[in-house]
Amino acid sequence: MTNNLSQTPADVFAAVAHPKRRQILDCLSEGDLTVKHLSAQFADVSRPAISQHLAILLDAGLVTRHRTGRENRYHLEAEALQEIEHWLQHYRQFWNHKLDDLGQYLQRKHGDAT
Amino acid sequence: MTNNLSQTPADVFAAVAHPKRRQILDCLSEGDLTVKHLSAQFADVSRPAISQHLAILLDAGLVTRHRTGRENRYHLEAEALQEIEHWLQHYRQFWNHKLDDLGQYLQRKHGDAT
Repeated sequence: MTNNLSQTPADVFAAVAHPKRRQILDCLSEGDLTVKHLSAQFADVSRPAISQHLAILLDAGLVTRHRTGRENRYHLEAEALQEIEHWLQHYRQFWNHKLDDLGQYLQRKHGDAT
Repeated sequence: MTNNLSQTPADVFAAVAHPKRRQILDCLSEGDLTVKHLSAQFADVSRPAISQHLAILLDAGLVTRHRTGRENRYHLEAEALQEIEHWLQHYRQFWNHKLDDLGQYLQRKHGDAT
């Protein structure tokens, strides 16, 4: 039986929801890697699990795979993260307002002191 | 049997992975709401499902619940999204570089034309 609350389509938000997949993206942000080299950086994750995480990242368009000689290398497609960037845009106003309020408070406090 | 690839701790990234939970946050960004009023905005989601989504958002610190009279109202805690904002910071360099490259290209092109 599937749990509809945790089941999400293979999109960018779902892809970065798992901490290991965020770690994989972090590794690939340093440069392209094979599954072998990527797996070497995860002592606690099996190579098949890394491959499954990569499949989810591929589906979401967050990585691409390129064949170089006999090897497949995975490449970060960071632009796909802009979907999250755009979604966050609406919420930035909330903490920006709070920063503005703090700035005004400090300015008033500074004004009183001089 | 649980699927370790989709199972994630109740954190901010996992909480916003589901499109309905992002929609709930969008609704709450307009103002505090009861489950009843929130459910009225989702024709395709049952009220128990909305409550379960809210429980996940509460766990992640993305919403808080306040009792007003006989009603519980849910309030957006947008600051919790700054965890995602900070994580994205590292990746912005990739699309900013591309924008810089485009800017330089256009500048060169404009320079040639004049």
